[in-house]
Amino acid sequence: MFFHIKELQFRAKPEKPDPVYARKLQEVLGGQFGEMSVMMQYLFQGFNCRAEQKYRDMLLDIGTEEIGHVEMLCTMIAQLLDGAPVDQVDEAAKDPLIASVLGGMNPQHAIVSGLGAVPTDSNGFPWNSRYIVSSGHLLADFRANLNAESQGLLQVVRLYEQTTDPGVREMLHFMISRDIMHQNQWLAAIEEIEAIDGPIAPASFPRELTVEPATRQFMNFSAGEESSMGAWANGPLPDGTGNFEYVPKPQAMGGIPVLNPPADHQHSIPGTGPYVVNKGQL
Amino acid sequence: MFFHIKELQFRAKPEKPDPVYARKLQEVLGGQFGEMSVMMQYLFQGFNCRAEQKYRDMLLDIGTEEIGHVEMLCTMIAQLLDGAPVDQVDEAAKDPLIASVLGGMNPQHAIVSGLGAVPTDSNGFPWNSRYIVSSGHLLADFRANLNAESQGLLQVVRLYEQTTDPGVREMLHFMISRDIMHQNQWLAAIEEIEAIDGPIAPASFPRELTVEPATRQFMNFSAGEESSMGAWANGPLPDGTGNFEYVPKPQAMGGIPVLNPPADHQHSIPGTGPYVVNKGQL
Amino acid sequence: MFFHIKELQFRAKPEKPDPVYARKLQEVLGGQFGEMSVMMQYLFQGFNCRAEQKYRDMLLDIGTEEIGHVEMLCTMIAQLLDGAPVDQVDEAAKDPLIASVLGGMNPQHAIVSGLGAVPTDSNGFPWNSRYIVSSGHLLADFRANLNAESQGLLQVVRLYEQTTDPGVREMLHFMISRDIMHQNQWLAAIEEIEAIDGPIAPASFPRELTVEPATRQFMNFSAGEESSMGAWANGPLPDGTGNFEYVPKPQAMGGIPVLNPPADHQHSIPGTGPYVVNKGQL
Amino acid sequence: MFFHIKELQFRAKPEKPDPVYARKLQEVLGGQFGEMSVMMQYLFQGFNCRAEQKYRDMLLDIGTEEIGHVEMLCTMIAQLLDGAPVDQVDEAAKDPLIASVLGGMNPQHAIVSGLGAVPTDSNGFPWNSRYIVSSGHLLADFRANLNAESQGLLQVVRLYEQTTDPGVREMLHFMISRDIMHQNQWLAAIEEIEAIDGPIAPASFPRELTVEPATRQFMNFSAGEESSMGAWANGPLPDGTGNFEYVPKPQAMGGIPVLNPPADHQHSIPGTGPYVVNKGQL
Amino acid sequence: MFFHIKELQFRAKPEKPDPVYARKLQEVLGGQFGEMSVMMQYLFQGFNCRAEQKYRDMLLDIGTEEIGHVEMLCTMIAQLLDGAPVDQVDEAAKDPLIASVLGGMNPQHAIVSGLGAVPTDSNGFPWNSRYIVSSGHLLADFRANLNAESQGLLQVVRLYEQTTDPGVREMLHFMISRDIMHQNQWLAAIEEIEAIDGPIAPASFPRELTVEPATRQFMNFSAGEESSMGAWANGPLPDGTGNFEYVPKPQAMGGIPVLNPPADHQHSIPGTGPYVVNKGQL
Amino acid sequence: MFFHIKELQFRAKPEKPDPVYARKLQEVLGGQFGEMSVMMQYLFQGFNCRAEQKYRDMLLDIGTEEIGHVEMLCTMIAQLLDGAPVDQVDEAAKDPLIASVLGGMNPQHAIVSGLGAVPTDSNGFPWNSRYIVSSGHLLADFRANLNAESQGLLQVVRLYEQTTDPGVREMLHFMISRDIMHQNQWLAAIEEIEAIDGPIAPASFPRELTVEPATRQFMNFSAGEESSMGAWANGPLPDGTGNFEYVPKPQAMGGIPVLNPPADHQHSIPGTGPYVVNKGQL
Repeated sequence: MFFHIKELQFRAKPEKPDPVYARKLQEVLGGQFGEMSVMMQYLFQGFNCRAEQKYRDMLLDIGTEEIGHVEMLCTMIAQLLDGAPVDQVDEAAKDPLIASVLGGMNPQHAIVSGLGAVPTDSNGFPWNSRYIVSSGHLLADFRANLNAESQGLLQVVRLYEQTTDPGVREMLHFMISRDIMHQNQWLAAIEEIEAIDGPIAPASFPRELTVEPATRQFMNFSAGEESSMGAWANGPLPDGTGNFEYVPKPQAMGGIPVLNPPADHQHSIPGTGPYVVNKGQL
Repeated sequence: MFFHIKELQFRAKPEKPDPVYARKLQEVLGGQFGEMSVMMQYLFQGFNCRAEQKYRDMLLDIGTEEIGHVEMLCTMIAQLLDGAPVDQVDEAAKDPLIASVLGGMNPQHAIVSGLGAVPTDSNGFPWNSRYIVSSGHLLADFRANLNAESQGLLQVVRLYEQTTDPGVREMLHFMISRDIMHQNQWLAAIEEIEAIDGPIAPASFPRELTVEPATRQFMNFSAGEESSMGAWANGPLPDGTGNFEYVPKPQAMGGIPVLNPPADHQHSIPGTGPYVVNKGQL
Repeated sequence: MFFHIKELQFRAKPEKPDPVYARKLQEVLGGQFGEMSVMMQYLFQGFNCRAEQKYRDMLLDIGTEEIGHVEMLCTMIAQLLDGAPVDQVDEAAKDPLIASVLGGMNPQHAIVSGLGAVPTDSNGFPWNSRYIVSSGHLLADFRANLNAESQGLLQVVRLYEQTTDPGVREMLHFMISRDIMHQNQWLAAIEEIEAIDGPIAPASFPRELTVEPATRQFMNFSAGEESSMGAWANGPLPDGTGNFEYVPKPQAMGGIPVLNPPADHQHSIPGTGPYVVNKGQL
Repeated sequence: MFFHIKELQFRAKPEKPDPVYARKLQEVLGGQFGEMSVMMQYLFQGFNCRAEQKYRDMLLDIGTEEIGHVEMLCTMIAQLLDGAPVDQVDEAAKDPLIASVLGGMNPQHAIVSGLGAVPTDSNGFPWNSRYIVSSGHLLADFRANLNAESQGLLQVVRLYEQTTDPGVREMLHFMISRDIMHQNQWLAAIEEIEAIDGPIAPASFPRELTVEPATRQFMNFSAGEESSMGAWANGPLPDGTGNFEYVPKPQAMGGIPVLNPPADHQHSIPGTGPYVVNKGQL
Repeated sequence: MFFHIKELQFRAKPEKPDPVYARKLQEVLGGQFGEMSVMMQYLFQGFNCRAEQKYRDMLLDIGTEEIGHVEMLCTMIAQLLDGAPVDQVDEAAKDPLIASVLGGMNPQHAIVSGLGAVPTDSNGFPWNSRYIVSSGHLLADFRANLNAESQGLLQVVRLYEQTTDPGVREMLHFMISRDIMHQNQWLAAIEEIEAIDGPIAPASFPRELTVEPATRQFMNFSAGEESSMGAWANGPLPDGTGNFEYVPKPQAMGGIPVLNPPADHQHSIPGTGPYVVNKGQL
Repeated sequence: MFFHIKELQFRAKPEKPDPVYARKLQEVLGGQFGEMSVMMQYLFQGFNCRAEQKYRDMLLDIGTEEIGHVEMLCTMIAQLLDGAPVDQVDEAAKDPLIASVLGGMNPQHAIVSGLGAVPTDSNGFPWNSRYIVSSGHLLADFRANLNAESQGLLQVVRLYEQTTDPGVREMLHFMISRDIMHQNQWLAAIEEIEAIDGPIAPASFPRELTVEPATRQFMNFSAGEESSMGAWANGPLPDGTGNFEYVPKPQAMGGIPVLNPPADHQHSIPGTGPYVVNKGQL
């Protein structure tokens, strides 16, 4: 069960409105790696958690924090939209700076949401739950979490370069700080799980059932061998089962597939009708 | 530019048809972490790659391999659908095993695709490109790749438990082997990049602009402190900037937000009309 | 069965083209609460109607009218797009007003639809049928309809403020008028149904099976009690079963959930492999 | 900012597993009118609220409660999935009851989520944010909320008829009770707002700009006049501006639209090429 | 403007209910090539039509007919759902035939729509407007229409094989007949347009700007030359500009692309920080 | 199995950057009829092909070529994005040309993809697999292919008019050439199949089961008879079964549908409660 307090986790107040930036900031609210995604991802991983209670509790702690980040971003976006010149269309026909603000805004901010934040990304595409991952496997999911925090931080840093508003930047300083913490958190959690089970997720499939040496071969499917020069093609395998092998010219092992002709009831073959396969009981 | 040979990378032939399993196997073809996702993810990362050529080449090698995995799965699914009893509806009214096959199949296999594979997941939801990630940042993207291979391998192993067909299992042996290799690959590539830049992605944002100590605090947003017992709350930070701190009772730092009243042209305030703000030039 | 006449229900002719406004007007054609939504919502409710014929007839009357509203909006949008300067890209590099028109347009109007209306909202997001509701329950659905007409009218009024073109405004005068009528219509229809059954939809679930006093409690899940000052927290319940109660500090009644450990065949537990649960018949 | 306690708001424990019902119950978790929808709808309305603080506080109270309902449903679904016979495929080939369970389950519960709840509806379609409404207008939004609680309660009552498990029914008793309360809440809140401004949302558009008598006419767009017999076609208008009028044969007022020929640069006219309109600067 | 009459265009009454078939029949109502698609496609093409009035009139005639087909399918599906045993869950635990019906139904028919048709395909995926095409170019669009009627007829014929209910089959006889007519219609219309302009859509791009001989070469991008044996690789080009040429080993003409290094403000390069490119005005 | 070479099929290098055009060009990469669509459509048709090997080989040849077209477009878009002034926001507040570039760009190019191509259309809507068709029926699918190449070529020609960059135009010259070839290809392939089976897809349904004369009637569902003047309403049917007939006033043949009252367990009827239909076993 959840409770709310009215104070924000951190200040979220722009120095002045900027409706074009409001549109851009939507990316880290309702985009693929926005705060809605991490909020829902951590909550679902927590609610579904079948592992030790410390993991469940940790996941719900961070998921609960992220609800508050959604709150901060909504608050910021609503204020960035204050004073948007959406009724100044006649002026816009003469003043190109007003015209470019109107063209660069998200029209739904002025038509749909009453100058409030919308649960979409910077192109107005709605958030959807396929952005999130909850597999029940801690290592796989912590990697999803680390990925989300990495992509998310990258986007926030890029957005930082696209404004100079001190109020916006102040909030971003805090969000960047928390994303750095959260990357640290998942890195530490991953290390804890890998210490038990090694780095392959899941590790539980028997190695004697794999097809060797396919578990160690980097296959060069293109002309040229630049790809042979990386750590993925040389030296020890991270899972400790041997060394990478570079296969300069991979060979097909599977033969040429030949599918059966189509079933008659599918009516896929030119030149075979007219007929009905299923005459029925009548 | 790409070329095709007719042989499959590995055998993909079931011992006997199983249209219900065909539906399930769609998950790793057209689901969130299916082969279509990794194929498109690696190809887009490669096409967009602005880093050293060895990375571009490596990404396109593995992306090209994955096109061939899509090919194998389509081939397998089409064969699992051979002989689906979709025209035996009168028999199904008497034979519950036929009825349950018809109920458990994907109806679109028999109506839409002519008993062929469809580019969707196991519930018939279409693949979409928001499943993939290509950010231009190697560390962030390699983490996305490691996540995709982890979730993907987990799903394939679960599917392995849901069939005993020797032909299907043989193909899965190979796919599991490649997913193990690909996890190894991304683990090695990540290690290579982290050696340059440390584990935070991106590392380029100046630390003096962060809000301290927020970069190191695990905040306990729930009653109870089980979450204090993990590596994410104690000991050294993976980025080497100090130690984790556990904050048992996080405090709000942001004050209570008060938004301005709505703009008149938004018509959001009960009791204020009738009016038109923008009278126009006329 | 349906018939068409060539005349529009009302005039739909702008005084002059305005391709940026064409993009905005798409919101009330193909957005969440646009004319496509009410058209399809009323038609589906009518086609599925299992109640008295007068309801079915009424739903199909209004649904049929809305097809004509889609027609009017498409006609208007096509004319607003006349003369869009999409081939004046070299001029745009010098003239910021042309540049801002090109930037503010929907590019698909010029690439995909041949300067015609598209079945999407103002951000180019396609209309989808999850926008509509048809539950088979008249009271529930009439509330959906009243909501749709309320959100729709609000959006049209906001769009009215964003143009001063007399031809566009003339059409909006008519559409606003019909939306007012349609709100009146659903208000009257709701009153008619509530007179039979009371205001809870559905009313048919036995009250003795509810958990009391949860049917009357407003629960204050946040610090501070401003929420105690509304009609939702004091005075008689609209359904006539008593009075609202304000619960300043809601208590959990459900205990701490503990989920079972994961099933082995899910391969979710680090440190337990290698194994295959389902060895198969072979 | 938000906090979590580990106890559930109410008990959520089935007497025995039922993986087919788990799939069905997903509808009220991640469907159009499920708990994810009301949770996000109330939170966004609250975060964006520009009205008096009592409304903001009330919206966030109920939004915060709904996070806890998502938690209860996830917990219930995870337990309903315990013991799902997904590895008993060889048995299923002989036992039609096992086969029908496997066919009736959501395959993603066993492949993707590790027998946990998924953020989708009962057909596996992902939740998306176009399910929610936050317009900034209290009356319009409270009607959206009343609609959501009406559709939601109807669905829960239907689901109640589809199980007899005492543990599931106990949780549904509580959820039904809260939905009844929430309908009462929105009914009371709507009455409070309508008292200020009348029942049209928004009321602020000047009536002298409407096209009369279109604001009062029910138009009979189909053969037959059954639709004349309802409260929507007779008697006083709910907004107090007069009486409904029934128009048995509505007339077109708009003339036949004739669109201009296509712009040359659109290449839409057969028989006009070859040409390039935009020769360019070169 | 549109009108409705209550009679259906053709009979739509099953001999007996069949809720599993109701789910399947949804494909041709709300699927990619269902009646909703052709209805909306023809209406949008008609509303946007900038060509001679006879085309506009023809498009709206057929679009209007298709609204009536949506009506017939909804009516049929609602009746197929009568008597669905959704409350017989205890019986289903013993009777595998009831269990398989429950497993094979669309759960939303019983939870969401009140045993009515839903605007989705056979997997419950919602109809969306990206299924339709309206480009403003008659030849291109008539090809889209011919494709839609071809895919649609194929699906209806496949569905015909999946039922033996005489009432359902009677309706399908009619729908198949109309789809045959509609294929004939588009074939004739295409021939009419091709007579003006030749078979390339659009024909208006100047041939002297093309890259020759790329307009006539079939390129063999795979090992083996089976593809050389078709009409697409030999003999005259349908557009009359010469003969096909078969290129057994296509050569790359484009060089190896090398992208510039990432812009600094994108923070994409490991090892370059810490920095902020945009220091701002302050 | 597939291989890659590093050279592009054709040059893809703009003379100078143009981030607004980069957004537009996305339409033919990731839009409904972009290169991703034809690539995946041909590959799936090839992988699923149950017809003669020459068709399979041909489909995979062209599908493989299209992967290379995706590569060319990604390369072009990445270069058009070089130098995008996304960090010049303070300058944009003064210079309307910079402001209009920032407003007209896709913000995700600068926030999400690191100035790389994204797998979406020109409005940022993600590519999804419902854009593609693979039915197993050669004639139906070749018509889908011809449609895709027609819509695609039309869009590329329109985009050609929207730039004058010589480098972009050079690449478009080549892509236009290949689209012309591909239309020729499908026209020839269609003719080959129609020679076997006639022009109705599928032809295999027995004509004696159709409802005559519905297979030949053009029905005039609107007032006015302009639609009688086309080849679709007069003269011989393309399938050779007779002549078109024009029906000026189509008559309904289906009677007025009356649906049964709702099932009690659906709780759809006002005034009938309180009750629970399914009391359960207890």
